[in-house]
Formats: sequence, structure tokens, C-alpha cells
Amino acid sequence: MALKMDAAEISSFLYEAFPQVSGDFEIRDLQENYIEVVLVVAERHLRPGGTVSGPSMFGLADVAAYFNVLSMIGPKALAVTTNCSIDFMRKPIFGDNLIAKSKVLKLGRGLAVTECLIFSERDERPVARANLTYSLPRK
Amino acid sequence: MALKMDAAEISSFLYEAFPQVSGDFEIRDLQENYIEVVLVVAERHLRPGGTVSGPSMFGLADVAAYFNVLSMIGPKALAVTTNCSIDFMRKPIFGDNLIAKSKVLKLGRGLAVTECLIFSERDERPVARANLTYSLPRK
Amino acid sequence: MALKMDAAEISSFLYEAFPQVSGDFEIRDLQENYIEVVLVVAERHLRPGGTVSGPSMFGLADVAAYFNVLSMIGPKALAVTTNCSIDFMRKPIFGDNLIAKSKVLKLGRGLAVTECLIFSERDERPVARANLTYSLPRK
Amino acid sequence: MALKMDAAEISSFLYEAFPQVSGDFEIRDLQENYIEVVLVVAERHLRPGGTVSGPSMFGLADVAAYFNVLSMIGPKALAVTTNCSIDFMRKPIFGDNLIAKSKVLKLGRGLAVTECLIFSERDERPVARANLTYSLPRK
Repeated sequence: MALKMDAAEISSFLYEAFPQVSGDFEIRDLQENYIEVVLVVAERHLRPGGTVSGPSMFGLADVAAYFNVLSMIGPKALAVTTNCSIDFMRKPIFGDNLIAKSKVLKLGRGLAVTECLIFSERDERPVARANLTYSLPRK
Repeated sequence: MALKMDAAEISSFLYEAFPQVSGDFEIRDLQENYIEVVLVVAERHLRPGGTVSGPSMFGLADVAAYFNVLSMIGPKALAVTTNCSIDFMRKPIFGDNLIAKSKVLKLGRGLAVTECLIFSERDERPVARANLTYSLPRK
Repeated sequence: MALKMDAAEISSFLYEAFPQVSGDFEIRDLQENYIEVVLVVAERHLRPGGTVSGPSMFGLADVAAYFNVLSMIGPKALAVTTNCSIDFMRKPIFGDNLIAKSKVLKLGRGLAVTECLIFSERDERPVARANLTYSLPRK
Repeated sequence: MALKMDAAEISSFLYEAFPQVSGDFEIRDLQENYIEVVLVVAERHLRPGGTVSGPSMFGLADVAAYFNVLSMIGPKALAVTTNCSIDFMRKPIFGDNLIAKSKVLKLGRGLAVTECLIFSERDERPVARANLTYSLPRK
């Protein structure tokens, strides 16, 4: 299956649709069913003590999974997040960017089911795990 | 069981510990096992089209449940979010603040289990449901 | 909104569609958006030590939420469980039946979102919390 | 890290602790952080139409993750399931056994976090995904 959007097209889409956050994210890898997205950690993502906030990790996982689904269904389609289950497992390494590695497990007619692990750049053990489900528009 | 922190004490704690976000939230009601927290919606919480962003709703649910647990175990204790499962059910009403109504279902030795519904101010139907679990420090 | 099936009709439906388990469950209360279903605990539901097994509690929550949705959309419709998030909070009381109290939070065109608390008959504190989502057939 | 129990020891443990279900499951592979467990599908696991029931899949995922954790912490320890989030994605293939492939993502002092995919024997696409968390006994 050919991708309907590549990384450059998705970055442009992000820049137009979500200008407030478009500088936060970089697509590092994009394949069918798989994506890696970096959160460029800045002051506004941090909690006292230097930990990346829960909402920032949630946002990273959502962006990564959403881009992955978009690349497979195309830009016109309106996918809506219906569920996210996120487990926070370890403190991120201070000063590291975060990387979300996300897979599409099912792209059905009505739902897309994804899974995601989030890592600090310098650690192989996951910081968080986030599973997101999207409702897809019926044709 | 008497609360170990009241709403004013928690607001002070929030202001000191999380100054970046302390203006976003107002405690409207606080009882044993129950809390209502308002997200004062501002431009930075919105997505294009005027919808409150997923990370903002996640943040609201986390703050509400965290405050509720804190009020029961006291300020010194360090509760850490371990899991959040959130369902997005309806679009928030444009222009409305959001209200999280959160309960503590279990306050055990090691874990606190909570549930939360989020509403637009002018609608009785929930916008989102979020369940959060916290790991509690052992004595 | 009038219910499309009452408790007797659902019990008949259960008996015909799922004869293996139909003796396990009793509908105690059924209203729009709300249901109470009893699991009549038998040897086969137990783990060593007398605790009701996780799969049995999962099955109870699924049956309760499914019946509640069925009562609102009618028997012909084929609702399929897409997600369940379940928290086990306390040991059930030995010898007690279990009661699931389930609500429909959203009955949309494509998805039904429910929540459920499970109790031992003689305790007000919930044993488990289970949230189930169903994919609904499009017309 | 050496395993504290191998597959034969876990099978013996299962046989003694859960005799009612011990015939249902076979350990196919066991490594540090990883396990494969087969559900030998029988009549009692099925729903009308030949689909494996939700509770049976839940039970498989729980057994697989529990064995994996046990192999790492040893038989004396009492791990308790605190949360399971399960997504049902595709119908199992009729007549196939099911295989759970489960990983331990975090083995902390208080919690073990796992993830699991369930497959029909003759299909590479997952039937279900189940994430389970266990509370571990403090020393």
C-alpha cells in the first residue's frame, strides 16, 4: 500500500492546521504502519524538576499516531481521537528530547487502533506507553 | 475522614509547585472522595475550530484527580500518575469553560484509583471520561 | 426515549444466543442508560481461595453493558465490543454474588461508550470498575 | 538476569494453583521479558458462530503476562492484576488456537507493566491487544 502523504506533506499539513504546536514536532521516520516523531522539548513542556509533563507526552503520542493514520488515509479525512490509554513508566532523562515510536495495529472501516512507546533519546527503556484509537469518517 | 488539605491550601500548593498552569484551574467543590475543578479556557487550550485540545482535557482530568488525592493524603506525599485512560465523547461547546467532576474510587496503600467526567458548563452530557491511577509513596 | 427491549426480552435473547452462560446472569434493574446485572457466583467462576476470577468479572461487565446498549438499539443490531478497560480494586466478599451497575455515557452513530462498577452484594465499596466501548452497525 | 522459574516450573505451578484451567494453556516460548502462550481452544471458549469469547481472550492475556512476571520474580511472590485494557480488533480464525505474545515493559518495585498481542495461529494480523498491570508485593 502506497502512503497517501509523505513526511513533508504531513509537516506542511501540521504547519497549516496546528500552527501553535507545529514547531514542537519533527517526523524522523515514516513508513506504512510505522512512524517516529520527536518532541523537541522546551521550557513549556516541563514540570518543576525538569520532567516532561503528562499532557506533553499525551500530545506527542496523539500527534504521532494521528500522522501515521493520516499518511495512510490521506489529508481530507477527518480522524477523531476516541480513546487514549497511557502508562507512565519512568522519568524522562533530563535534557533529552522524547521520541514516539508508533504503529497502526488495525486500520478498519470505522476505527484505527494504534500503539506507541515513548523514549528519551539516550535510553532504550520506554518512558511511557500510549494506545490511541481514532474514529474514521465513513465514505 | 477529615481532609488533610482544603481548597485554599491546594490552590496555594498549585501556585507554588506549578506556577505555569496555576491560573488555568479553579477548585469549585472539594469533599472527601470528590472534587470539581474548572478549566478556564483560553486561546492556548484551543485547536483550530475552537475545540479544546486533547492534552488540555488530559491536563484538567489529571489536575482534578491529583488534587482530590492530595486533599486526602496531604501535601508532603508524592503521588505519581501511572495510568490514564481517556474517552473523548463529544465536542465541547465553543466558548464554555470545562468542568471536571472527579471521584476517588479507591485509596489503597500503594495505589489510588479515580474516575472523572468532563463537562461543558452548559451541557449535562459529558464531553470526556478520564480514569487516572496514582502510585502512592510507601511509608 | 422508550426502550426497544425490556428485561424479559433481553433474558430471552440471552437464553437463545448464549445458552452456555444464560444461567449465570440475572437482570435486576433496567432503565434508559442504566442497568444492574447480577452474576450468580458458582464454583466455575472462582479462583483458589474463593476469589471470583478476572475473566468472570470481565464477562459480567461485558454482559451488563451489552444488555444496556441492546435495550436501547434493539435486538437485530449487532454491537461488537471494541475496548474494555478494567481496574481490579478490592477482593470480592467470599460467598457473595456480584452486581454490575452500568451506565451508557454516549450512544452515538458509530460507538457506544459505557461505564460500570462491580460490587459484592454486601459492600458499598466497588470491587472493580470496567469501561466498555461498542462498535455499532451503521444503517 | 536469570529467570527465577522456567517453563516447566511455571506449568507445574499452574497445574497446582489453577487446576480448572491448567489444560487450557501451553507455554511455547519463555525468555526474560517475553513469553508466548497458546490457548488450546475448546467448546467452552466459544460464542455462537465459533468466535472465541472475550473473557477467554482476557484470560489468555492475563495468564501470559502473569507467567512472564512470575518467571522474573519467582513463585512465592503474589502479583495481583490491577488493570487490563483490551482492544478487540479482528475476529479470530475459526478452528485456530490463539497465541498470546507478551512483553514486560517495566518491572518496578511496586508495579509491573506488560503488553500483549493475541493472534490466530494462521494469521499475522493481531486479533486483540491487551495491556495488563500487576501490583507487586513489597519486601
